[in-house]
Amino acid sequence: MAAQYIDFETLKYFLYDLHGLEDVLEQERFVDHDKESLDLFLESVKEFSDRELFPYFKEMDEKPAYHKDGAVHVHEQVGVMMKKGGEMGLISGTFDYDDGGLQLPMMVYTASAFIQDAANNHLPGYVGLTLGSAELIIHFANEELKSTYVPKMLSGDWGGTMCLTEPQAGSSLSDVVTKATPTDEGYYKISGQKIFISGGDHQYADNFVHLVLARIEGAPAGTKGISLFVVPKKRPDGSGGLTPNDVTTVADFQKLGQRGYCTTHLGFGDTDDCRGWLVGEAHQGLKYMFLMMNGARIAVGRGAAAIATAAYHASLQYAKERPQGRKLTSAGKKDLDQGQTLIINHPDVRRMLLLQKTISEGSLSLVLLASKYYDLKETVKDPKEKEKYSLLLELIIPMVKTYPSDMGAHAVSNGLQVLGGYGFCTDFILQQYYRDIRIFPIYEGTTGIQSLDLLGRKLIMENGKALEYLTAEVMQTIQNASNYDELRPYAGKLGEKLQLAQKVITFLTGFAQKGDFERFLADATPFMEFLSTITMSWLWLDIGTHAKKTLVTGQKTYSEDFYESKIHAMKFYFKYELPKVNGLAEILTDEESLTITGEKEIFH
Amino acid sequence: MAAQYIDFETLKYFLYDLHGLEDVLEQERFVDHDKESLDLFLESVKEFSDRELFPYFKEMDEKPAYHKDGAVHVHEQVGVMMKKGGEMGLISGTFDYDDGGLQLPMMVYTASAFIQDAANNHLPGYVGLTLGSAELIIHFANEELKSTYVPKMLSGDWGGTMCLTEPQAGSSLSDVVTKATPTDEGYYKISGQKIFISGGDHQYADNFVHLVLARIEGAPAGTKGISLFVVPKKRPDGSGGLTPNDVTTVADFQKLGQRGYCTTHLGFGDTDDCRGWLVGEAHQGLKYMFLMMNGARIAVGRGAAAIATAAYHASLQYAKERPQGRKLTSAGKKDLDQGQTLIINHPDVRRMLLLQKTISEGSLSLVLLASKYYDLKETVKDPKEKEKYSLLLELIIPMVKTYPSDMGAHAVSNGLQVLGGYGFCTDFILQQYYRDIRIFPIYEGTTGIQSLDLLGRKLIMENGKALEYLTAEVMQTIQNASNYDELRPYAGKLGEKLQLAQKVITFLTGFAQKGDFERFLADATPFMEFLSTITMSWLWLDIGTHAKKTLVTGQKTYSEDFYESKIHAMKFYFKYELPKVNGLAEILTDEESLTITGEKEIFH
Repeated sequence: MAAQYIDFETLKYFLYDLHGLEDVLEQERFVDHDKESLDLFLESVKEFSDRELFPYFKEMDEKPAYHKDGAVHVHEQVGVMMKKGGEMGLISGTFDYDDGGLQLPMMVYTASAFIQDAANNHLPGYVGLTLGSAELIIHFANEELKSTYVPKMLSGDWGGTMCLTEPQAGSSLSDVVTKATPTDEGYYKISGQKIFISGGDHQYADNFVHLVLARIEGAPAGTKGISLFVVPKKRPDGSGGLTPNDVTTVADFQKLGQRGYCTTHLGFGDTDDCRGWLVGEAHQGLKYMFLMMNGARIAVGRGAAAIATAAYHASLQYAKERPQGRKLTSAGKKDLDQGQTLIINHPDVRRMLLLQKTISEGSLSLVLLASKYYDLKETVKDPKEKEKYSLLLELIIPMVKTYPSDMGAHAVSNGLQVLGGYGFCTDFILQQYYRDIRIFPIYEGTTGIQSLDLLGRKLIMENGKALEYLTAEVMQTIQNASNYDELRPYAGKLGEKLQLAQKVITFLTGFAQKGDFERFLADATPFMEFLSTITMSWLWLDIGTHAKKTLVTGQKTYSEDFYESKIHAMKFYFKYELPKVNGLAEILTDEESLTITGEKEIFH
Repeated sequence: MAAQYIDFETLKYFLYDLHGLEDVLEQERFVDHDKESLDLFLESVKEFSDRELFPYFKEMDEKPAYHKDGAVHVHEQVGVMMKKGGEMGLISGTFDYDDGGLQLPMMVYTASAFIQDAANNHLPGYVGLTLGSAELIIHFANEELKSTYVPKMLSGDWGGTMCLTEPQAGSSLSDVVTKATPTDEGYYKISGQKIFISGGDHQYADNFVHLVLARIEGAPAGTKGISLFVVPKKRPDGSGGLTPNDVTTVADFQKLGQRGYCTTHLGFGDTDDCRGWLVGEAHQGLKYMFLMMNGARIAVGRGAAAIATAAYHASLQYAKERPQGRKLTSAGKKDLDQGQTLIINHPDVRRMLLLQKTISEGSLSLVLLASKYYDLKETVKDPKEKEKYSLLLELIIPMVKTYPSDMGAHAVSNGLQVLGGYGFCTDFILQQYYRDIRIFPIYEGTTGIQSLDLLGRKLIMENGKALEYLTAEVMQTIQNASNYDELRPYAGKLGEKLQLAQKVITFLTGFAQKGDFERFLADATPFMEFLSTITMSWLWLDIGTHAKKTLVTGQKTYSEDFYESKIHAMKFYFKYELPKVNGLAEILTDEESLTITGEKEIFH
């Protein structure tokens, strides 16, 4: 395990050179930060991850979280994560100074969390959800709730959670039935069950602050009748202490992966003594939750990108050390007088490694880009610019959540294959990455739900304005790339696929215009793969163009190989991944409708 | 777990109607069998699987095989499998009457083993490898070895294994170094290490008969110097008893999946007292092993098809029982006055289920077809026909091993996704199928190695004659389908893709003709996906055509829905899977070479 799990040079290159963090730092909010101070911060996170996260990765899988005597027990490193997370600003980093934060750009927070996720994806979620729930309180709750809960959360003394899912409703939040009954005391009585609550209970926090979606009696049906409550595990007793708040830890789900990251089943109000405090206004709960959702979706994409990255480095190390077989001679035979070659010299192994590299690095670029849009939409002054970055973020966010998750899982599977039989054995780490990453296409809205969001909402919002902005960005990259002979053919290919995308979108939106929404959205998931692959090709062309420009100007920060390897990876993506969109376009423009319920019983 | 794991109607339909087992039964070898007797056999296997295999599936994962005090300990159901496997003819079924067999067609054996694999893939391997090693002895060893070992193997009293892989050599059998030193006593002294030996040791067999690849001192280098030996764990002591033969069980590999199926590390000759008996002639070992390899590769494809099938039925059952969300109204909204709908009514869930169905049923059809070719090449009298079936089998065998494995894993992942968060939890069975099936793209030659075999050997053998036979078969199906208006467009599509395949093959073989074998084979794996997808479309068109014909003639054995559902599945495969080949063709005919080692360090 004394191995590399990220390439720090690539991370910094993407952050500064490719995505221009220094431009973002020019915004007033970030005036106290510069490259030097941020480098120090990221290096301290790397050093912390090397020491406190990565060494416990395998052990946390082998000794998973478990439920016993009404409580969840987790690995002791969770305690270190919470404590150090508080101390190092990993929870409060992006918050306002006034709220106890450091006003770090989201780009830097994403880079920092990416390092931690790659080192040990079982741990950063504990602080990540504490951050997310504190953020909800800061933005929407009153001063009393804020002062009661937030400081203890930011210090890592108390954990925070998001309680959305219920056993009978799953992804369908319209069907949330957890009840909130008003009292005359300023609080509500809460009763219900919540499942899949990450970080919902453990022995390393003195208290938990649950942000719970519930329905006030008499509220409208559906999502418009859902309110948000702060429901602590222990509530203030009025004299400076805490008293139990009738929140029960029913169980800890045992899982395929991320076994060190507990996933709890919580019961609220079993003895009718569970108090919740309304956040903001009644019936606005889902709106509040969704205003925070972009951050959560960037976090999922980032986590998946990080696991794919760590798996890539594990496969690469194996391939560089493992001798097996021989290179083919020009007669198409193996020359037995030669010694064995390292497997990294076999074309099929190189193909799998390059697939891992392009998916993991491309995904990292994507989550950093989303973070940049996030920073800019929050900080630019010009309303037109603000709108632009806001719409760009809204459009790409379902892809940011989905592409690293789906394709990251595919990349890890290829990484396992690089090790052959050893990849299947628990003595090697690939099988753990393979299990851990499988939750990401499910977290925070499954691939199916993200795809409905992309096609059914984001693409058509404001008459397609977001797509216009994205198209303009892609065209700009195509133009930049066209300045270089070596890149011009790739720019041309991307231009063609952009036109193909327009054709597909026109075909699909035709169904919406005719009022056939079920058909419009039936192939949303293949559409997600289609548009994501084109988007990733754009990002790779951008990487290639930046690298080429540096090679031409000679102003290199890293070695020549570093830049050449980025251009090579770009070419790989264009050769091996981009062509997929042809088949996907054929699927998407096929007139036949085969997945909508009809008269025939097709699952005989 | 009181659930369905196969669809017996589909299995019988494929066996009798689609692939015409009754035609195979007309061969002299099978004269004692008829549909009635074979149905009884298959039903007894199903009943056995329901009772003795399926109920232990989860438990065998939770209590995996382990190594302790120099021995491997497995679940007690392994004892039942070995004993009943012997009694029911599951080991000896396909063997000659003279060798203690039942002369069952391979098609029936495959169907029988498919049922067992689907019920519990951790168990049938124990008898499967005993069968395979007994078969090697029967075919190539002398009468003394045969009479000493085979009867005890066929009864399930002794286990058999195949010992190929060594720690330093992996897939590269040229580099096998296990040593065989001749003695004057008619045996050889064996010394070496073998890893990944499935079923290599457990408490439910009195002895193990290892078939070991080793190198006789002074043998030629590479695969031409490898010989095959029978190396028992305990050897006959000359007075009717057994004595230890210096075979050590070093370890049991702990794995991602198939945890109830032990995978051992064996040491031979630690104390220089390990005796091995040569099978057949010296230096012919790999040839013998490979003559048996077609059966082993059908078995891998069958196992993967079976796991994908069982996973499909588990997902389908969940989707039919789980209410969540609502159907969209014509205004594109959810109508909250409606009750929740079952998730099987959501188009994206139907898409995932149909993907599972088409991959698993298509894979079953493929392994039955391979078994039919196997039966016919063994039994037809006409030498021209014999050659035809032999070449057809050789050509499809790498696809038979690979497609169900790779795409089966993809299907199971979609099946897990159908369950959302529950799919990731160990309370549900999908996560076990997801882990179990991941070994199949590695077993018996990885996907990379099968792909080299397909493109570099099978496609060009005898000047492409095998491909000519396959093309003729596909053309015949296209012609049959063209008789029906409903199927004609699909026949047309397949015809186009067949032409595309010819174009791709001409492009690739061009490199071989120029002597650039490394480039010729560099994209063998995408080529595997390309040709497999076209082959599977052919099989689905054939299924659709048979179903249509039955609906037209009205001579139905099953319900109308049954046949309609097969046609629907065919259309699904043509819409959602076949278009992939366009992108793959683009990859395969791209002039750029990006995965062959060159001057640049591309993995910076």
